[in-house]
Amino acid sequence: MIRFECDYAEGAHPAIMDMLIKTNLEQTPGYGEDHYSDEARTLIRDLCKDDTLAVHFLVGGTQTNFTVISAALRPYEGVLCAETGHINVHETGAVEATGHKVLPLKSCDGKIDSAQIETAVKAQMDDEANEHLVKPGMVYISQPTECGTMYTCEELKAISEVCQRYDIYLFVDGARLGYALASPQNNITLKDMAELTDIFYIGGTKVGLLFGEAVVIRNEELKKNFRYMIKQKGGMLAKGRLLGVQFGELMKDGLYIKISEEAVRLAMQIKKAFLDKGIKFLYDSPTNQQFPILSTEQIGILKREFAFSDIKDMGNGLRAVRFCTSWATREGDVDKLLNEIAAL
Amino acid sequence: MIRFECDYAEGAHPAIMDMLIKTNLEQTPGYGEDHYSDEARTLIRDLCKDDTLAVHFLVGGTQTNFTVISAALRPYEGVLCAETGHINVHETGAVEATGHKVLPLKSCDGKIDSAQIETAVKAQMDDEANEHLVKPGMVYISQPTECGTMYTCEELKAISEVCQRYDIYLFVDGARLGYALASPQNNITLKDMAELTDIFYIGGTKVGLLFGEAVVIRNEELKKNFRYMIKQKGGMLAKGRLLGVQFGELMKDGLYIKISEEAVRLAMQIKKAFLDKGIKFLYDSPTNQQFPILSTEQIGILKREFAFSDIKDMGNGLRAVRFCTSWATREGDVDKLLNEIAAL
Amino acid sequence: MIRFECDYAEGAHPAIMDMLIKTNLEQTPGYGEDHYSDEARTLIRDLCKDDTLAVHFLVGGTQTNFTVISAALRPYEGVLCAETGHINVHETGAVEATGHKVLPLKSCDGKIDSAQIETAVKAQMDDEANEHLVKPGMVYISQPTECGTMYTCEELKAISEVCQRYDIYLFVDGARLGYALASPQNNITLKDMAELTDIFYIGGTKVGLLFGEAVVIRNEELKKNFRYMIKQKGGMLAKGRLLGVQFGELMKDGLYIKISEEAVRLAMQIKKAFLDKGIKFLYDSPTNQQFPILSTEQIGILKREFAFSDIKDMGNGLRAVRFCTSWATREGDVDKLLNEIAAL
Amino acid sequence: MIRFECDYAEGAHPAIMDMLIKTNLEQTPGYGEDHYSDEARTLIRDLCKDDTLAVHFLVGGTQTNFTVISAALRPYEGVLCAETGHINVHETGAVEATGHKVLPLKSCDGKIDSAQIETAVKAQMDDEANEHLVKPGMVYISQPTECGTMYTCEELKAISEVCQRYDIYLFVDGARLGYALASPQNNITLKDMAELTDIFYIGGTKVGLLFGEAVVIRNEELKKNFRYMIKQKGGMLAKGRLLGVQFGELMKDGLYIKISEEAVRLAMQIKKAFLDKGIKFLYDSPTNQQFPILSTEQIGILKREFAFSDIKDMGNGLRAVRFCTSWATREGDVDKLLNEIAAL
Repeated sequence: MIRFECDYAEGAHPAIMDMLIKTNLEQTPGYGEDHYSDEARTLIRDLCKDDTLAVHFLVGGTQTNFTVISAALRPYEGVLCAETGHINVHETGAVEATGHKVLPLKSCDGKIDSAQIETAVKAQMDDEANEHLVKPGMVYISQPTECGTMYTCEELKAISEVCQRYDIYLFVDGARLGYALASPQNNITLKDMAELTDIFYIGGTKVGLLFGEAVVIRNEELKKNFRYMIKQKGGMLAKGRLLGVQFGELMKDGLYIKISEEAVRLAMQIKKAFLDKGIKFLYDSPTNQQFPILSTEQIGILKREFAFSDIKDMGNGLRAVRFCTSWATREGDVDKLLNEIAAL
Repeated sequence: MIRFECDYAEGAHPAIMDMLIKTNLEQTPGYGEDHYSDEARTLIRDLCKDDTLAVHFLVGGTQTNFTVISAALRPYEGVLCAETGHINVHETGAVEATGHKVLPLKSCDGKIDSAQIETAVKAQMDDEANEHLVKPGMVYISQPTECGTMYTCEELKAISEVCQRYDIYLFVDGARLGYALASPQNNITLKDMAELTDIFYIGGTKVGLLFGEAVVIRNEELKKNFRYMIKQKGGMLAKGRLLGVQFGELMKDGLYIKISEEAVRLAMQIKKAFLDKGIKFLYDSPTNQQFPILSTEQIGILKREFAFSDIKDMGNGLRAVRFCTSWATREGDVDKLLNEIAAL
Repeated sequence: MIRFECDYAEGAHPAIMDMLIKTNLEQTPGYGEDHYSDEARTLIRDLCKDDTLAVHFLVGGTQTNFTVISAALRPYEGVLCAETGHINVHETGAVEATGHKVLPLKSCDGKIDSAQIETAVKAQMDDEANEHLVKPGMVYISQPTECGTMYTCEELKAISEVCQRYDIYLFVDGARLGYALASPQNNITLKDMAELTDIFYIGGTKVGLLFGEAVVIRNEELKKNFRYMIKQKGGMLAKGRLLGVQFGELMKDGLYIKISEEAVRLAMQIKKAFLDKGIKFLYDSPTNQQFPILSTEQIGILKREFAFSDIKDMGNGLRAVRFCTSWATREGDVDKLLNEIAAL
Repeated sequence: MIRFECDYAEGAHPAIMDMLIKTNLEQTPGYGEDHYSDEARTLIRDLCKDDTLAVHFLVGGTQTNFTVISAALRPYEGVLCAETGHINVHETGAVEATGHKVLPLKSCDGKIDSAQIETAVKAQMDDEANEHLVKPGMVYISQPTECGTMYTCEELKAISEVCQRYDIYLFVDGARLGYALASPQNNITLKDMAELTDIFYIGGTKVGLLFGEAVVIRNEELKKNFRYMIKQKGGMLAKGRLLGVQFGELMKDGLYIKISEEAVRLAMQIKKAFLDKGIKFLYDSPTNQQFPILSTEQIGILKREFAFSDIKDMGNGLRAVRFCTSWATREGDVDKLLNEIAAL
């Protein structure tokens, strides 16, 4: 079975594993106060071109999301996001478990826009009984989104501006950020990310690491005592240098982009193969996730050799499914898939 | 200014005030362990025809909702409700503040049905990644709803059955329960309520009392240690006998139904007056809340003498508004309103 | 049975009840936005001699405590208090239920001092692993304390200064504040309270009202969006004017102090009666709560006619008990008790 | 600098690293549903001699503690533990952040006993106002304790019995469990642990792994939906097989005990060296943590070449410090330390 069902089916990029082996028996202080973590922080600040940024390493995405959100919000505040947002649908209510309502906005492709945000914020402000409504305190978006789509720099700027105008934090979930940065359609740099958001993270789990998410904070208010939040929420790894070592290697010499580009290149081949067969897509994705709409028969054929995810019943015997590539996807496996698709 | 904007503009029914005065200087134990509270509990059990029910008195509706919901759910469980449900829109995220996601279902009139509930429950159960989704642990409905509409006994039975089939609690918010019980269209008794739900409450704040909600629990699991929950969540009134005295008087000799019937009778007059002018309604309500759709001009005229609530922009210069009657509404005030409507 | 077991055995002072009756059928807006509440706020600001204070009315003490504390603290912060503090021992973990650790300090009489606070704050700050420790973010004290003792103005100033030096909020639980203000030993005015604390409350439940606590906020940061907190935590009474009407009457013409003085005067008679018999006290209280240490036999005799609270086993067949007076205590009842004590 | 300050200064045991490398590019399902995790679960069940046990792998200790505790308790329940317990002092209020009070019991050596537990439970039950007190719902102990001390099997049995008698969960934090199992004084087997507790965990982070804690559940109630809790609280590693691979290797062929024994052997050498110099200890520890009480001068000398932790000011110019050995401690480093101690 060749697995395209997610982008976390393997371990870590071999260069990462090499560094973990090489540094394995070294003694360092715990909890991220080691020199490897410091060096990785510096690399990230350099890539973002801002040496005042705070950088913290956490273990996983759900953990990062609820740690950031609960660090930012007051008890009566909630977080606006697309109805498809990971925090709204796939985290077992982790944000609500920290006391905050997720405020979903309509979305047909995983994205929301600045106008929707402004409308929602004003509706709450202007309501006579506004104290009876949850106050939006943060906007959460994903880049790329859970649907594989991406924000343009212009869209991100517009969202950033509306957040600033209404004094609301902007938080970007970058669990798959590499696959956006590496997309041919991308026009947002890490520097833009750091400038336009209050806080965002660079995902490692799905882009080359065993695990790990690098949180980057520009907003001074959010920088305060963030390590207390990490500890309380269970994200402070005892052997924190494991995150430093991994991110140090990933961020050095363009490895992050290089492996992401390869994953996107292979995803585009898969996309083209389906399009060539006249197959439609649930979302038009320029990143590593592809959502073709297949017939039961087509699914049956592809399932014999490939694992992929079921997403949604589209009616008429059709279902949307998901194929993911990743830094670990092998060209040969994709070739086999391309042949099967061509033969459908 | 004559106020029809809500059903809590006045104090308490004079009979209630009389009892409060009469008992004022008596000494009793605190926290609801007095004989007045015991007598009121007995009256409610009698009306529900089940002497095994647990009955507790809390101060307000939002407090009652989050106390009940957090008492019932495990940390990873959420509560299904209509998207218009009070807990979803008008309680400043109070349920989420106790750690639980509110899971809204589509509704055009404040009601949800058993099929929607079943679909939602099965969708979570059947999802491959179900542990990543919030597990529905309770259904919350309001009787009458926030839109003034009511469930029939058949509808309530169907919801009750689906909840039992999937081992999910059924909780009914009865903040305005009297106005449903007193509606000509009602076919649900208090006995039905107690039999078909795990827990529900009889609202006093909006139906004759200064404040107070009587929680009625049939489910044995929910009965356990419920007083701990009330205390922790701030609902255990030191002078608990104030609730006992009030509910004792309200539940005696049919006062609850009598004052509710009068409120509904007056609401029906208002409804008829609007209908006679060809005015449409946002919801078809057989209870004390009426939601006519008026033009800006009509609103301007009525606003000169009457207070009512703004609900929703309906486009084309029309707005839905809300007129409430209550146990305290005076016939003379309604007559004035009827005349104004007739003259529109 | 004559009850001295607590200070909330009766309803409200007759003047309060009169006002509730008089205003009962008036129509007002809900949720504390009525003119009675506004007038009561003005009266309290006047008594505190600061018209910039925010004043909010809540229903009960536990509710007020957790609402204030959760409004003030960041998620990783805790609240320092005496180990005997009400929030630490008698609120079913209500503060922890909002996510915050209560950090108890040793106390033999219900009080803590500025040196203890400074030591605790510095210990956390100076710990190498301070991010692994809860950060003190607030000091909670009660005036008078749960033991009946009181802070002097000098002690309160010292605590206030240490809180300011370390940027920590000072919150005073004044559930029984009247009985401190009315004590012959008191040298703290309401003006001092407002100046020296960030937030405190004037208790009504135990001092003349049916229920109600008036929160007074000087700190600008704490003033922000406090009504959202009240609503979310269940403290926003629908018929909020009930609190306004009651506090308006209580704060007018010195009623609050007058009824408190009478309660303290009677408590001092009881204290003297026990002292005259050579009976010792658990705490030396100059307020309405008295904690004599009695033998089993003495307790047996007094129990025949009087209700009082059991507090603590003192060994050697002795137990500390509690007698409370209140605004409602009758001189005749105290006389009976004095006679019984004299006859022990 | 040779580090004895903690037991997590290095990476993982080389055999673990080898397995991670060997399996690195294999494709497996995520979230612990892979065959490596299943095999590790079987190994642990075999060692505990009970194939009905549920076994789950989490990332870190704090995370494990709050996930287990919040899974077990009802909102009004708290967790009894030694005042020195990790959850009470070194987790930034993580348990309270899930809504539950930690109920500390006096302890001079990190241990509590069955009598203390019974006294605390009965005190709450027997209190007239028990609903105003947090209800003990769980006992948390650490084996070995944070002080290096250990429970005997008889002590554990007595605690287990009192927990069963009062229907309270027993949870053992085994972050350093290997070092207890490997101690010459130990008389508790993994089988005993599984039989006598409701839930416990086998720590990997401090005993040979990069990270990881294996939660073992005997209690049927606690088994239910535990994966939902792990996901919500951020402990469900996307590449869950990393935990399976590591624990599989650690639990195979006695590696866990073997490396723990070596660490304890070296710790006993250090203990003996201090004792031989007439140096006293804060706690009498038979495990890998040693707490000698040193003079400022002695500390100064040892600090030149060795890192160790400062624990407590003992007065008279003396301080208690901590030396830890671990699976990674080198005999040569210990020899250097022994020489330095001998030369003090």
